[in-house]
Amino acid sequence: MKSTTDIGKFYYFFPQAVAVVGIDENVMPAAWHTPISAEPPLYGVVVSPKRHTFELLQKRNSFTINFFEHDQAHLVAKIGSTSGRDINKLKEFNIKFVPAEKVNGPILQDSYAGYECEKIAASEYGDHFLFIGKIVLIHYKEELMNSGRLLDEKKVSPMLYFGQDRYITIDPQTLSVFKRK
Amino acid sequence: MKSTTDIGKFYYFFPQAVAVVGIDENVMPAAWHTPISAEPPLYGVVVSPKRHTFELLQKRNSFTINFFEHDQAHLVAKIGSTSGRDINKLKEFNIKFVPAEKVNGPILQDSYAGYECEKIAASEYGDHFLFIGKIVLIHYKEELMNSGRLLDEKKVSPMLYFGQDRYITIDPQTLSVFKRK
Repeated sequence: MKSTTDIGKFYYFFPQAVAVVGIDENVMPAAWHTPISAEPPLYGVVVSPKRHTFELLQKRNSFTINFFEHDQAHLVAKIGSTSGRDINKLKEFNIKFVPAEKVNGPILQDSYAGYECEKIAASEYGDHFLFIGKIVLIHYKEELMNSGRLLDEKKVSPMLYFGQDRYITIDPQTLSVFKRK
Repeated sequence: MKSTTDIGKFYYFFPQAVAVVGIDENVMPAAWHTPISAEPPLYGVVVSPKRHTFELLQKRNSFTINFFEHDQAHLVAKIGSTSGRDINKLKEFNIKFVPAEKVNGPILQDSYAGYECEKIAASEYGDHFLFIGKIVLIHYKEELMNSGRLLDEKKVSPMLYFGQDRYITIDPQTLSVFKRK
């Protein structure tokens, strides 16, 4: 192993599913996100103050998170390289959506699952902010899930961001199950 | 799309690379983690107070993060189903490691990359805590990286957790690149 204090982009945590954050009628892909709590169900997304979505997240008290399959990577790349300051991305790219039921944001119809989140916290760390939402409603395509309402690797190919404009997905043949004692 | 307020485990954010957190001579796999800032480079890991690693993270001021390939999933499952309260997992499972150079924790020799982190924050959200560390040194296997020091999808098969004891990896054939304008 080599070691260095030249930390650079430290992209070794990838690949990571892309979370498309929706707020008002705006959308932004985020590669930095994580669950934060199981009960209550909390989800966190890390956003730079440079983003238009950051301004909306500061002003509003809710947002949505949407997950797409790998075949939508071209679309998500376009969403990520344009700003809601300049265009309405949902209209410009013909993205089908319905308004969330309980919060203020879009639920994207070509995604396989989505969360409706009520913002409960916003904290600044370094050059980004962590926004945390309580998940109050989930949307999912039942036909892509197994009986336990989990993603079925044979039916869904999650879009994973691999860093530096690269997208990839899973190989369903590699699924391994190691039950806990 | 179906929708429900029965949030359950909301496992639609998976798959996700597994971060093996090291502290003292203890290790724990975490599926909930994310970068938090680019400059300074900050990394966050979400840990339940039930874990032995939680107690160590509260007491100590540093930790390591280690990333493994998919063929080590059986080992990581064992690390995840045992507690450092009962055994020394590094010895019990013959895990090769060297002490971190700048912090207090193990760098695992069979991982493809690792971070040495100085703890800078710990925040409670719901039933978990978010611990944030500043990355002060990175380790990586140069032979698995491309010229930009990024993971080469043809050479490395990151271990991804898929929820509910399931592990999976990428299909290198599916790599797509969509350059930003």
